[in-house]
Amino acid sequence: MISKVKNAMSNLVGGMMPHGHHHHHNHHAGGAQTCGPDGLPPRFPYGRPEFLELTPELLQYSTEHASRPVLTLKRGSRLPWRTGYAEVINAGKSMLNEDQACCEKLFVKKPSGKHRNSTLLDNNTRRSPPISVDASQKRDGTGIPLHFWGVFDGHAGSGAAIMASKLLHHLIKDRLGEICHLLENPSSAPPICLAKNGNPFQVESKKGASQEPEDPDAVCDSSVRFYMEKVVSLESLIMGVIETAFKQMDDLIEKEKASYAISGGCCALAAIHLMGKLYVANAGDSRAIIIRNKEVIPMTNEFTPESERQRLQYLGFLRPELLGNEFTHIEFPRRIQHSELGKKMLYRDHTMTGWAYKTIIEDDLKFPLIYGEGKKARVMATIGVTRGLGDHDLKVYNSNIYIKPFLSCVPEVKVYNLEENKHGPDDVLVMGTDGLWDVTTDRDVAEAVSTYLSCCDPSDPMRYTLAAQDLLMRSRGVLKERGWRLANDRLGSGDDITVFVIPLVGHETDT
Amino acid sequence: MISKVKNAMSNLVGGMMPHGHHHHHNHHAGGAQTCGPDGLPPRFPYGRPEFLELTPELLQYSTEHASRPVLTLKRGSRLPWRTGYAEVINAGKSMLNEDQACCEKLFVKKPSGKHRNSTLLDNNTRRSPPISVDASQKRDGTGIPLHFWGVFDGHAGSGAAIMASKLLHHLIKDRLGEICHLLENPSSAPPICLAKNGNPFQVESKKGASQEPEDPDAVCDSSVRFYMEKVVSLESLIMGVIETAFKQMDDLIEKEKASYAISGGCCALAAIHLMGKLYVANAGDSRAIIIRNKEVIPMTNEFTPESERQRLQYLGFLRPELLGNEFTHIEFPRRIQHSELGKKMLYRDHTMTGWAYKTIIEDDLKFPLIYGEGKKARVMATIGVTRGLGDHDLKVYNSNIYIKPFLSCVPEVKVYNLEENKHGPDDVLVMGTDGLWDVTTDRDVAEAVSTYLSCCDPSDPMRYTLAAQDLLMRSRGVLKERGWRLANDRLGSGDDITVFVIPLVGHETDT
Repeated sequence: MISKVKNAMSNLVGGMMPHGHHHHHNHHAGGAQTCGPDGLPPRFPYGRPEFLELTPELLQYSTEHASRPVLTLKRGSRLPWRTGYAEVINAGKSMLNEDQACCEKLFVKKPSGKHRNSTLLDNNTRRSPPISVDASQKRDGTGIPLHFWGVFDGHAGSGAAIMASKLLHHLIKDRLGEICHLLENPSSAPPICLAKNGNPFQVESKKGASQEPEDPDAVCDSSVRFYMEKVVSLESLIMGVIETAFKQMDDLIEKEKASYAISGGCCALAAIHLMGKLYVANAGDSRAIIIRNKEVIPMTNEFTPESERQRLQYLGFLRPELLGNEFTHIEFPRRIQHSELGKKMLYRDHTMTGWAYKTIIEDDLKFPLIYGEGKKARVMATIGVTRGLGDHDLKVYNSNIYIKPFLSCVPEVKVYNLEENKHGPDDVLVMGTDGLWDVTTDRDVAEAVSTYLSCCDPSDPMRYTLAAQDLLMRSRGVLKERGWRLANDRLGSGDDITVFVIPLVGHETDT
Repeated sequence: MISKVKNAMSNLVGGMMPHGHHHHHNHHAGGAQTCGPDGLPPRFPYGRPEFLELTPELLQYSTEHASRPVLTLKRGSRLPWRTGYAEVINAGKSMLNEDQACCEKLFVKKPSGKHRNSTLLDNNTRRSPPISVDASQKRDGTGIPLHFWGVFDGHAGSGAAIMASKLLHHLIKDRLGEICHLLENPSSAPPICLAKNGNPFQVESKKGASQEPEDPDAVCDSSVRFYMEKVVSLESLIMGVIETAFKQMDDLIEKEKASYAISGGCCALAAIHLMGKLYVANAGDSRAIIIRNKEVIPMTNEFTPESERQRLQYLGFLRPELLGNEFTHIEFPRRIQHSELGKKMLYRDHTMTGWAYKTIIEDDLKFPLIYGEGKKARVMATIGVTRGLGDHDLKVYNSNIYIKPFLSCVPEVKVYNLEENKHGPDDVLVMGTDGLWDVTTDRDVAEAVSTYLSCCDPSDPMRYTLAAQDLLMRSRGVLKERGWRLANDRLGSGDDITVFVIPLVGHETDT
């Protein structure tokens, strides 16, 4: 393993390592680009989050699986909201750290010029929208401020996680820009229908002329009030923006795979602060909790083969061709032996929560779509998370069966109203990849953070980073003769770990 | 309306009225059976629950829409656990009371003779199982005691609700009988695999002979322990029994429609007490709550077009042929006018919780699969509940599009451990059809019951029936010049209302 890491590092320092442990050696000597398996260049080079400001030496140092150095924000650097950050590489399961993170302050603005009336508002056409990564726009300070934090836990390569960490927040910002005129007027409900120019559009009354109503009175025409019309809140429109942006991110990865090597897939967890509310969007098994007055408020659910069993079984039941004659959508408590044909075995299908007995038939001998328990549960014996971005060409080993139809790129979005709640300096949002939570419970995280912060100088700009580092250490443990061990001598997490600790108070000075 | 009711009543007194408001007039004069539209006899005659012991005169009186008399248990009658009961007919929306109820004490026993090894354990073959409605077995007092309460809220006729109220508990009892040997040994986990004789079956080790292991040691063979094996609890096996019994009930209705007129469909809510635990199974929009120490513990979720929107949209998306070219699976906040083609309208698909804008295309002009809000939300403009039994031939008006594929007959089962909690005489389970809950909240029901029972003689055998009647009156209201009105002058429920109030303590004397 060590020699493999060394090998990768020489690539890395020469430029980047786009393919995680699926790398190979046709890189251009000393060149800035290493090509993927199809000879395609990577979409973005491998690296750690820019805000860490790593030198090439530090970047190399960060990938030492033997020592697993913890990276934090440099003293003197500063993230929006005094956000704290810490990360560490895995204990050897992949050559590079496949986690990625992003923390940005952006400004939501009306799209400029011709984009306004074209495809931007349109989620119907699945074209990838233009993305405005425009440094000047980022800093001129006009528009509605938007804060974004993302953690991306990659698998089977780091390409998707890196790309998502670079682009997802821009997609969200751009989609929000399209409804900017609605955000600027938060007291009135969003119009149900928009004309091409983005103004509210209402069908004309029977007596009216058949032109678009320029007369403001026409908008309130009573002849259409007869019909049921749901009131949609601005909040649910913002949720829709985030859901749609995740889909567009996933589509963009698929599209750009034609031109770039974008390896693997990733879980995506994003927190967006806009107009006094925190939107936490999760697709995968990362987790976010708010700690308020030492109490835990969960902001995410995990999406795993176990938690999404019924959704996946339902798809397998309705579209058996996706199972490629190799898998059965029915769940059994263990593999069935051929000698058990005709016996009765416990099972459950997509409709059931409990278990019942069924007579075993030939078809039941196929491998179960969902198999395994807890962290070992897998979809089609391949993947342990059921939502995320990328994975478009992930197949069952040695087969032509694609996993992607069973994966969802849509996050669950929860909303927390920051302005409706009082917060102290020790109240925080903690976001972490599963490496953090696998060995430390919500409750333990809350206790550790609360204890740590209460002992910390409230004016220390590093306090949230130090708290993040403390959390990370609790899950990584320390290297002993028998591996990475926690304080209680249990095994520490051997996974990549990424942690944000985000204070919920005192950011007024920052916006 | 009055003359229609009178007309129905003459049928009723002559025998029964199998078809609710879809009735017609080809009944045999004075005969015991009125035939359905296909000339088929009803599966069970119309009537009210047997435990009400109604005379024909009282049965007729019970259907007076004008006065809406409240029916309760007779003083002197007694249901298991001193269960309280009250019901009332609707204000005219259907000729007969389409609610039904059931309260029974049964005994779970091993199936006798040849059934044991045949189809009974087998949920694979969708044959309808033999049902043992055997009065002697019911009363000889051997076996594991099982208490059952069911409320069935019929629609488009009373046939399905009546049939379910007569048979569902027997199906559950019979399915439990098949695992009786497991119930009798609750300390050991149910075996994953059963041989034909019902004994645990384990595949042989490589070295073993290829006969079924008679040797008890063979069951613990270590060669199969290598594989992952989920531990399934007895509780989840009982949940599976209940889920399976609901499916069998639904299949039985479908099958017997070949020979009988079984009109409409019904929501089904059942509470089963077995071995110290209460299993509450709900398919539809009835509701059950436990009131413990004046606090509400919800025991059901409602299944409606709104709560199951995404499941239905997903089916419409995956199987568009079920929408018959008339409906779109995409939701819009209102109907779209043809003149709005090309405009942008808010929408959400099966993946979304929030809303986004899309350009309207021709296909979006179809009627939405889910349409309307709250109590007015409908699937395919037809039905306002998405789970239940029956409805096999329900079609969209004036079309050949079946609704049934979108309906689920599977209940959600919640478990409450009676023995793990302390209960006083005012702690109860309240079960009611939506007529009760539409105008009275959980909180109000809890307050009303707690207040009522605390003023009531604890030894009065009628106290729970009086509490049920009190609840019912709060939702029905009283007849004023402007219809049925509540104490606050708001409109009372015009629906059929059925209420059970079931004490959670003191039933030891009854078992």
